[in-house]
Amino acid sequence: MTAAPDERRCALGIDFGTESARAVLVSLADGRTLASTVHAYEHGVIDATLPAPDDDVALGPDWALQDPADYVRAIQALVPPLLPAAGVAPVDVVGVGVDVTSCTVLPTLADGTPLCFLDELRRSPHAWVKLWKHHAAQPQADRLNALAEQRREAFLPRYGGRTSSEWFYPKALQLLEEAPDLYARAARIVEATDWIVWQLTGHETRNSCTAGYKALWSKQAGFPPEEFFAALHPGFRHVVDDKLSRRVLPLGASAGGLSADGAAWTGLLPGTPVAVGNVDAHVSAPAAGVTEPGAMVIIMGTSNCHILLGDRESVVGGMCGVVEDGVVPGRFGFEAGQPAVGDLLAWYTESSVPPEWHARARQAGTSVHGVLEEEAARLRPGESGLLALDWWNGNRSVLVDAELSGLLVGMTLATRPPEVYRALIEATAFGTRTIVDAFDAAGVAVERIVTCGGLPDRNRLLMQCYADITGHELAVAASSQTPALGAAMFGAVAAGSARGGFDSIVDASRHMAHLRDETFRPVPAHLATYDRLYGEYRRLHDRFGRGGDDVMRTLRQLRRDAVTR
Amino acid sequence: MTAAPDERRCALGIDFGTESARAVLVSLADGRTLASTVHAYEHGVIDATLPAPDDDVALGPDWALQDPADYVRAIQALVPPLLPAAGVAPVDVVGVGVDVTSCTVLPTLADGTPLCFLDELRRSPHAWVKLWKHHAAQPQADRLNALAEQRREAFLPRYGGRTSSEWFYPKALQLLEEAPDLYARAARIVEATDWIVWQLTGHETRNSCTAGYKALWSKQAGFPPEEFFAALHPGFRHVVDDKLSRRVLPLGASAGGLSADGAAWTGLLPGTPVAVGNVDAHVSAPAAGVTEPGAMVIIMGTSNCHILLGDRESVVGGMCGVVEDGVVPGRFGFEAGQPAVGDLLAWYTESSVPPEWHARARQAGTSVHGVLEEEAARLRPGESGLLALDWWNGNRSVLVDAELSGLLVGMTLATRPPEVYRALIEATAFGTRTIVDAFDAAGVAVERIVTCGGLPDRNRLLMQCYADITGHELAVAASSQTPALGAAMFGAVAAGSARGGFDSIVDASRHMAHLRDETFRPVPAHLATYDRLYGEYRRLHDRFGRGGDDVMRTLRQLRRDAVTR
Repeated sequence: MTAAPDERRCALGIDFGTESARAVLVSLADGRTLASTVHAYEHGVIDATLPAPDDDVALGPDWALQDPADYVRAIQALVPPLLPAAGVAPVDVVGVGVDVTSCTVLPTLADGTPLCFLDELRRSPHAWVKLWKHHAAQPQADRLNALAEQRREAFLPRYGGRTSSEWFYPKALQLLEEAPDLYARAARIVEATDWIVWQLTGHETRNSCTAGYKALWSKQAGFPPEEFFAALHPGFRHVVDDKLSRRVLPLGASAGGLSADGAAWTGLLPGTPVAVGNVDAHVSAPAAGVTEPGAMVIIMGTSNCHILLGDRESVVGGMCGVVEDGVVPGRFGFEAGQPAVGDLLAWYTESSVPPEWHARARQAGTSVHGVLEEEAARLRPGESGLLALDWWNGNRSVLVDAELSGLLVGMTLATRPPEVYRALIEATAFGTRTIVDAFDAAGVAVERIVTCGGLPDRNRLLMQCYADITGHELAVAASSQTPALGAAMFGAVAAGSARGGFDSIVDASRHMAHLRDETFRPVPAHLATYDRLYGEYRRLHDRFGRGGDDVMRTLRQLRRDAVTR
Repeated sequence: MTAAPDERRCALGIDFGTESARAVLVSLADGRTLASTVHAYEHGVIDATLPAPDDDVALGPDWALQDPADYVRAIQALVPPLLPAAGVAPVDVVGVGVDVTSCTVLPTLADGTPLCFLDELRRSPHAWVKLWKHHAAQPQADRLNALAEQRREAFLPRYGGRTSSEWFYPKALQLLEEAPDLYARAARIVEATDWIVWQLTGHETRNSCTAGYKALWSKQAGFPPEEFFAALHPGFRHVVDDKLSRRVLPLGASAGGLSADGAAWTGLLPGTPVAVGNVDAHVSAPAAGVTEPGAMVIIMGTSNCHILLGDRESVVGGMCGVVEDGVVPGRFGFEAGQPAVGDLLAWYTESSVPPEWHARARQAGTSVHGVLEEEAARLRPGESGLLALDWWNGNRSVLVDAELSGLLVGMTLATRPPEVYRALIEATAFGTRTIVDAFDAAGVAVERIVTCGGLPDRNRLLMQCYADITGHELAVAASSQTPALGAAMFGAVAAGSARGGFDSIVDASRHMAHLRDETFRPVPAHLATYDRLYGEYRRLHDRFGRGGDDVMRTLRQLRRDAVTR
């Protein structure tokens, strides 16, 4: 394969989200999108029953699965139309990168065949992909945390003192405990991002991002000790050697070239370099131009993810994790997150907005979000009389507690939908300020904020509230497809300059990542009221989140008791 | 006038509500409704501008007025059709009673002419009837409470330690302070219930119910001392002698016979006995068959009112008041209340239920309440995962704090409207249990509960939740018009047995009040979970209601600051 002429060099990035996947072909010269496609998964999030014909198999509460066949169908649907649309030839595509949600994992045979592809296993929910938001492994996570604390495991401080039920080991341990025969049958348990790269290249690799953030791996210390896993469950002692791999490749490394199958699915040339797997949030940082310490990147969509780089491993209470090489090779990548932002506003518009507002949206030719945002933007800070804790999907940072739930206070008989809508937006902004404050307090300074994801384009009120409440000017990444752009950038790095790409993600970011001219600046007149409301938020946050009042946990338990009675 | 033959004796009751009035003609033999009529007021609640042609006069926030002409028009519309419909003659009607909302007051000339009937005064909002829910006298109420506490006024414990801005003196003091010329012009300031009786009979009387519950009068101690009023405002020293009357008649006493005007408006015979004025909630107790201690009557509608009788004056923290002769002559009547019950559910269905449920209601030919209730009734206790504090319109008992507001906790992205609807119902039931517990703790035993009002007919789920949560079997009054029936019963007592009526409300109740056969019994399997949830409710209730966490007050203040900035 010969390097393409400079001006036509491009890279392919595929971003596998929760409900759909997107692909972009981007220019290596300036990061410009040459063509893009979107594809909704056939089965999407599987959270009630398995797909037909097995839809008589009901899933338990808090289960969330995906179908690995959806990923392959997405590749086949997304990529072939891109090249003619962009007017480029297969030889112009120097590399391929993918990013996927995480921790999203599946059990497979030694050759990578998902257990759910086997006729005799497909009716077992445990044979499918456990999606990041599968929360049914909370008991396993609770035991893992308690044991790690009791044994003073060295890994725990790197994860803010507490690990999540969404991560690798709780999901794997739930498989072992609830379906031991499937666990035994699974030669590998693999992140979806590594599995997709495996399908494209024909061989298995593991990447430093998911290994670090979700499987408790560190470049210096490796994985947790076998004694720890054995203490969790005797059969779990060899989980790393049996189901994972101790060979972890840094981000931007090449996982190999496209296999014959991979080439056939995509229409690209066999042998085109494919980067090791990556994760939607982490891949966005360089795509938002951030490859150095000091700038926090917030990926704002259904959930918020906060990425910050540092020069050393610092302990930040309640962050998701710090991983060397976890975002940009050579740096320590810090991650924090809020599991419901766009999802919270979507829940509100779908479950709590009366017909009048739907009718107004139709008349105005806009969405319910649009009409609510317009009215809510007319309110002054404090005018709603409302305050919320934004924990509709638990709290990831800084409390790391999926059992927490939402709270809304201040309602009167005069409370109207735009007031609630604004209070929910403000609550997520208070949540982000709590995270920023935790980093600042730990000496990992947040000097500026760069945003990307779907929300900066869709909700100006939300952006203004985040500026007013954090007190930071918010920059916005130029690309509206930062994860896919970031994946493509890592594809270019996998190729390396010798094959027409870049030798580092810093180089790729310098050429391909851009910010918009427009920023969102704090309104000085809003700061005092929001400081006051933030004080109220923090007091409620600590009381309901740190054990002062356990009502949220009690309500969860009563709900579980009620549905299982 | 000769007594009518026994089997045809009947009495007229007129119930003046917030938006409309109802009249019933009931049999004295068995309380059966012979005929009934309903009439919506022309001007209803006046809370934005005065009625045309003075609709350029805007009212302030929290103002709520009525037009006294609406009361007279209601009498003229309601009563004349009743007799032919019932097939009775004027001579068969032995007595007349009325009940009105309270504290609903108006300033008049010495002859009873409302100041708002005078051309030169009708453009002043202070010349009109201040409706019970006029809340613009809160500053006056705050001063009154602070002064009473500082002076350790003997009346304060009778009102649970705190009086309301809805009551007589805050409204009168607001008149004095904001419109001193009108205050001077007002020869009388009179409860609407007493004013209507005045119009029917031609002379002024005052009743022990409104005097006791709303004007701080007691049979033993009389009114608060003049020094107290003088300390509030020098011009207020003689408010009782100047604007009220120290002659207070017990309920069931005759205010006199129908005047020529009264007879012309109603089509009844001049001289027909008219009972002194009464109040909608209090008049309902004997109409629900309760004339003895031990049974709590709950009048359940837009708000809840709780009435309980005792043999002595007990101090019950946070009740609205205890008044000797305030409900049934010879007994101490205790009152407590919750200011938003039906109103809270109405707020929810109007402001927070998405189109899907409205469409389902239309398809099913029922209301949004109907479809939500049906789904919510399928949930088990605890299954919603939600808990609310029911203070959307403040808390009347046992916290007596209009600044409190609503709270909802436990929401997840899976939370659906029937779950919220049920949680709101449960919250109002927890509020009632809090009131029951306060009476029990003060030694005023609640041995059984009798309900009446609109909700028992309209919402079976609500009734079941109240039974499950209070642990009491709930009886339901047979009449769906208990206030009007109670007013009629007091009309029969005003007549006395010598004129074909009854000599006491106890006698009248024995003959005329009935309960339905059907009751709502607690489901034993529900009690443990609801006990647990009630514990959570009470902890939040005390924390947010008793000063442990002032977020609700802070949010109110920030809202006021925001709208007045």
